[in-house]
Amino acid sequence: MAVATQSLEELCINSIRFLAIDAVEKAKSGHPGLPMGAAPMAFVLWDRFMRFNPKNPAWFNRDRFLLSAGHGSMLLYALLYLTGYEDLTLEDLKQFRQWESKTPGHPENFMNPGVEITTGPLGQGIANGVGIAMAEAHLAAKLNKPDFPIVDHYTYVILGDGCNMEGVSSEACSLAGHLGLGKLIALYDDNHISIDGSTDLAFTEDVGKRFETYGWHVQVVEDGNTDLDGIHKAIAAAQAITDKPSLIKVRTTIGYGSPKKANTRHAHGEALGADEVKATREYLGWNHEPFEVPEDALNHWRQAIDRGAKLEQEWHQLFERYKEQYPEEGRLVERMHEAELPEGWDAVLPTYTPEDKGIATRAHSGNCLNAIAEVLPELIGGSADLAPSNNTLLKTSGDFQKGQYENRYIRFGVREHGMGAICNGLALDGSGLIPYCATFLVFTDYMRAAIRLSALSEAGVIYIMTHDSIALGEDGPTHQPIEHVASLRAIPELYVIRPADGNETSGAYKVAIKAARGKRYSNKTRPSVLALTRQAVPNLAGSSIEGVTKGAYILSDSDGTPDLILIGTGSETQLCVKAAEQLRSEGKKVRVVSMPCWEVFEEQDAEYRESVLPKAVKKRVSIEAGSTFGWCRYVGDEGIAIGIDQYGSSAPGGVCMEKFGFTVDNVVTKAKAVLGE
Amino acid sequence: MAVATQSLEELCINSIRFLAIDAVEKAKSGHPGLPMGAAPMAFVLWDRFMRFNPKNPAWFNRDRFLLSAGHGSMLLYALLYLTGYEDLTLEDLKQFRQWESKTPGHPENFMNPGVEITTGPLGQGIANGVGIAMAEAHLAAKLNKPDFPIVDHYTYVILGDGCNMEGVSSEACSLAGHLGLGKLIALYDDNHISIDGSTDLAFTEDVGKRFETYGWHVQVVEDGNTDLDGIHKAIAAAQAITDKPSLIKVRTTIGYGSPKKANTRHAHGEALGADEVKATREYLGWNHEPFEVPEDALNHWRQAIDRGAKLEQEWHQLFERYKEQYPEEGRLVERMHEAELPEGWDAVLPTYTPEDKGIATRAHSGNCLNAIAEVLPELIGGSADLAPSNNTLLKTSGDFQKGQYENRYIRFGVREHGMGAICNGLALDGSGLIPYCATFLVFTDYMRAAIRLSALSEAGVIYIMTHDSIALGEDGPTHQPIEHVASLRAIPELYVIRPADGNETSGAYKVAIKAARGKRYSNKTRPSVLALTRQAVPNLAGSSIEGVTKGAYILSDSDGTPDLILIGTGSETQLCVKAAEQLRSEGKKVRVVSMPCWEVFEEQDAEYRESVLPKAVKKRVSIEAGSTFGWCRYVGDEGIAIGIDQYGSSAPGGVCMEKFGFTVDNVVTKAKAVLGE
Repeated sequence: MAVATQSLEELCINSIRFLAIDAVEKAKSGHPGLPMGAAPMAFVLWDRFMRFNPKNPAWFNRDRFLLSAGHGSMLLYALLYLTGYEDLTLEDLKQFRQWESKTPGHPENFMNPGVEITTGPLGQGIANGVGIAMAEAHLAAKLNKPDFPIVDHYTYVILGDGCNMEGVSSEACSLAGHLGLGKLIALYDDNHISIDGSTDLAFTEDVGKRFETYGWHVQVVEDGNTDLDGIHKAIAAAQAITDKPSLIKVRTTIGYGSPKKANTRHAHGEALGADEVKATREYLGWNHEPFEVPEDALNHWRQAIDRGAKLEQEWHQLFERYKEQYPEEGRLVERMHEAELPEGWDAVLPTYTPEDKGIATRAHSGNCLNAIAEVLPELIGGSADLAPSNNTLLKTSGDFQKGQYENRYIRFGVREHGMGAICNGLALDGSGLIPYCATFLVFTDYMRAAIRLSALSEAGVIYIMTHDSIALGEDGPTHQPIEHVASLRAIPELYVIRPADGNETSGAYKVAIKAARGKRYSNKTRPSVLALTRQAVPNLAGSSIEGVTKGAYILSDSDGTPDLILIGTGSETQLCVKAAEQLRSEGKKVRVVSMPCWEVFEEQDAEYRESVLPKAVKKRVSIEAGSTFGWCRYVGDEGIAIGIDQYGSSAPGGVCMEKFGFTVDNVVTKAKAVLGE
Repeated sequence: MAVATQSLEELCINSIRFLAIDAVEKAKSGHPGLPMGAAPMAFVLWDRFMRFNPKNPAWFNRDRFLLSAGHGSMLLYALLYLTGYEDLTLEDLKQFRQWESKTPGHPENFMNPGVEITTGPLGQGIANGVGIAMAEAHLAAKLNKPDFPIVDHYTYVILGDGCNMEGVSSEACSLAGHLGLGKLIALYDDNHISIDGSTDLAFTEDVGKRFETYGWHVQVVEDGNTDLDGIHKAIAAAQAITDKPSLIKVRTTIGYGSPKKANTRHAHGEALGADEVKATREYLGWNHEPFEVPEDALNHWRQAIDRGAKLEQEWHQLFERYKEQYPEEGRLVERMHEAELPEGWDAVLPTYTPEDKGIATRAHSGNCLNAIAEVLPELIGGSADLAPSNNTLLKTSGDFQKGQYENRYIRFGVREHGMGAICNGLALDGSGLIPYCATFLVFTDYMRAAIRLSALSEAGVIYIMTHDSIALGEDGPTHQPIEHVASLRAIPELYVIRPADGNETSGAYKVAIKAARGKRYSNKTRPSVLALTRQAVPNLAGSSIEGVTKGAYILSDSDGTPDLILIGTGSETQLCVKAAEQLRSEGKKVRVVSMPCWEVFEEQDAEYRESVLPKAVKKRVSIEAGSTFGWCRYVGDEGIAIGIDQYGSSAPGGVCMEKFGFTVDNVVTKAKAVLGE
């Protein structure tokens, strides 16, 4: 219905709508429906509630906003443009979905500082939001002092039907309710439409009541298209609830304003088309050219700049006084915000000699965590209900629970995927936490999408994955990793570290912690997966922290050019050591290489790599109690990779290892075969 | 509390408990707590309600039982032994968790016919159960006739807190409620304990109410330890509810009977220890030797044999009359139950010549599905809310919905992991359905655990995964698969097929359908993942269905020994074809190999494989728009694998392919480099 004159709010809201419509139309690709339907709630939220500084997306105490329904990216880009973020111009909007633009199809945090977290895969954003709200609760409890609320902000998420169907969001929201995260406010774009059509096809649960069973506070705004006041009241009411997260079901029409496509699946994921764009302009009374924002609306939106500058300035004044009174905490805030590690932090990492009792690398990991926790207050984490098995408990910290948010041990429950996504939130919150999480290595399968997003979004998460091979024994093939290390190595920009003993576990942590602070040290923050044993392993002569920081290194060598190189990782490196002894006693020149991390090795210069694995030495045997997939890279055409490419078996771990060929004898046999004997 | 004389029920229940306790104790490994706590409900269910024939675990119309809390496997093994399953002896129980025993740590369907589905990873079993209940509803609607209820059975699941925390179960249970699966009855072993300790640590949602929001019928049995009558009434009431699935929260004590460990996490996952075993024997008044079952109890339990024989015999009489009156349906039942494919079914698979218009392989896939659906009524499936994108709709079938169970198109909703686990249930139900499911290839990450279980449990599921590379374009790096094909290849016993054109897509379906019926044709049923394009691809000269059934084949060749072999998969095979033309015009002898499926290729005999990729021809170039991880296997030390090992970009698909090097020019350049020019 054409309106003669539009109110200022309508102008502001339609500005969002038409930037989205026009950008998608120009790209001939994208999702106009959500921006058109969610524009009113986004306006109320960003114009009236959110506390942020468009000129400083990294302001420590900003409210965080996540678009969990990431396909609606033009909504977010429009908001960033309208409110005056520096790095987003009209030209950027016109380059929506084009090569190397700042406006990719789904929001990517590394392309644009205004984007808190990369979203797109459904359900992730809301789970990230739970993590960000946990960060706020934790840091507020830890850092705030009387009259110094330096951490005091909300986490807002817009999510849709898809996010609510995904299991990862159920997991995270159940935990959020348990934790009583009162500063988390989720607006549910409740439009009853998904790609297949009406949600009546597959999704008829009572979402609002479900969230109540999690312990959330739930409200409904019946007309999210035009009842701005209702939206406003609901957000205010949600803010007033301090002991529960809040869900606001906002009933909207997808593609609102499009005469033919509104309220249908056709508004979801395709450009409206020239005719329908025209019809929508008529319907909403929008006479402006593509990408043209009426001056009144832009001026109103851009009040966010002064507002934000003022908010941040006030906070800085508060923080200055805080630093005077609490210099240690002040320094900590700054160090964390700068993602700096304290000088010599790694001195706490324990080292070992072969005389030290061999224990499982998961136990070494537990020791490392506890040592690091003492010098890095930013370390926070937990396990998906496997604390005793994963060795993740922090001796000096109680559990992070409602009313005890200052603690840093998190009980995630049996919710691996939610745990990973929450950790991405903890990492990308921007305050400087270093999160770790843990489960059995085989269950990385449950959380792979979150691990991948850690890598893609440069979230410095440390994934502690124990029980890393058939050596775990009796739990059997459903629990014994086979292809997991290989398949994780295939994920770009993820460190996969499989330490052989105590020194190497310390080395793994040195790498992982530095990678989590990557931007300062190597230009790229990376997550790491640590693959750790259930069973005890000996401490090896020659192992070192240093070696792990190079990815692969020579553990022991004969004089002169080796006849043969044995390459081991993790618990199998000891087999190489013993096999080398035997082969050397028979006159062979054998080099033993420990290779805890392929990715770090590949980052070393060519000279170093050649010094460890000289091209000319083609006789090679690798051994790893996992899939041989990919090992041809390091053993080559003339080498042999010893591994296991079938499912395991339920039996004691030692029996499994022996039956599947992980013995010194087998290494020696294969070595001789490679040598042509 | 020692009891002077035990009732017959108590004897039967304690028989379960002590078989579990003794087996775990002997193995010094395992989970005694759940069997001890869930024994009463298991007794009531198996002794009084379940309709099954211990001597014929494959009886078509049996009730199905799934232990979703798979770690409690001794509960299931005890039940199978006590009720008289043929293949489970006392000796097998004594070999619990030992090499190659029939009683592995978690129930494995391929080790024991009494085990319906492999469980262990939490949340899977209940989701499988949803699938099995869907199978029952579908086949009942499709096959039953007036007075001939040949499909009429219940699906029972025992699940625990862990299963209820997992997102996969939320997804499946939400769908189950939407579908109104009245024959699904889940007993929730509600013991408030998980590995970390009390569920108060992380899991305080109102589970019962949550299930009500899904549309389930929910009851509570307050004393699941001793109130057998209450359990009985609840199951009966659940059976009477025909339009909703039922959840019965049974409050139990984990490790019931163990004075020190009951109701603690120490009962969950470790042997009780000799002292505590003794104390438990005293507490429960059990004077029998390890593995000794009192005669009264065993006789009572074994009544299941006659009962079952009678039930099955009655059903067979019914079925015989059904076959007379409905011979066609009768034949269908038998054919499906035997996992036989009708003669010449594959004649419907379309074939193409290069003159036929090139379309996306996802579109070819849609055509194949529809063609196959006409001749295979057992085909059933759907998509996770991407029906138009995945091309999965069946033209001749409406949606499978409440009251319309005879239809075979399933609207899974945005629930990838639940979808995969449900399909495992559909496949392993045993009635002979062939399920397919679909989403974007990148979202195999969400459902990897279910895919792995398909492979491990020999579930013939067809995973249709579209939008398989950066060529999908503007949706960008969160949606563009990179490492997915490689990482899926790493999963043992899974076919990963990436067809190049129409003929190869038909070939992919021939392989996938036969693999789904594998036991009859090759001794091993396998799931398949089909990686399909978003974009159109030409039909290639020389491509064939037959070629795909060999995994890799020569698409075109020069005379004599090739100088160079170009290997392509999927959409990149056409680049090999064009590059070969160019190189041949320059006088090179070039062989083009299409390699749609590594795993099938590796199953061919050595002679065939050598004929396609002769060892002596070392100059090779492969090209696949995905990770190069693992390609060294086929290109060797002297070859080059063209791929992409970094994240993609949001831009039109053609731009992405060009920018990342997927061009004829690049293949030619790399070819010349390999040839040393």
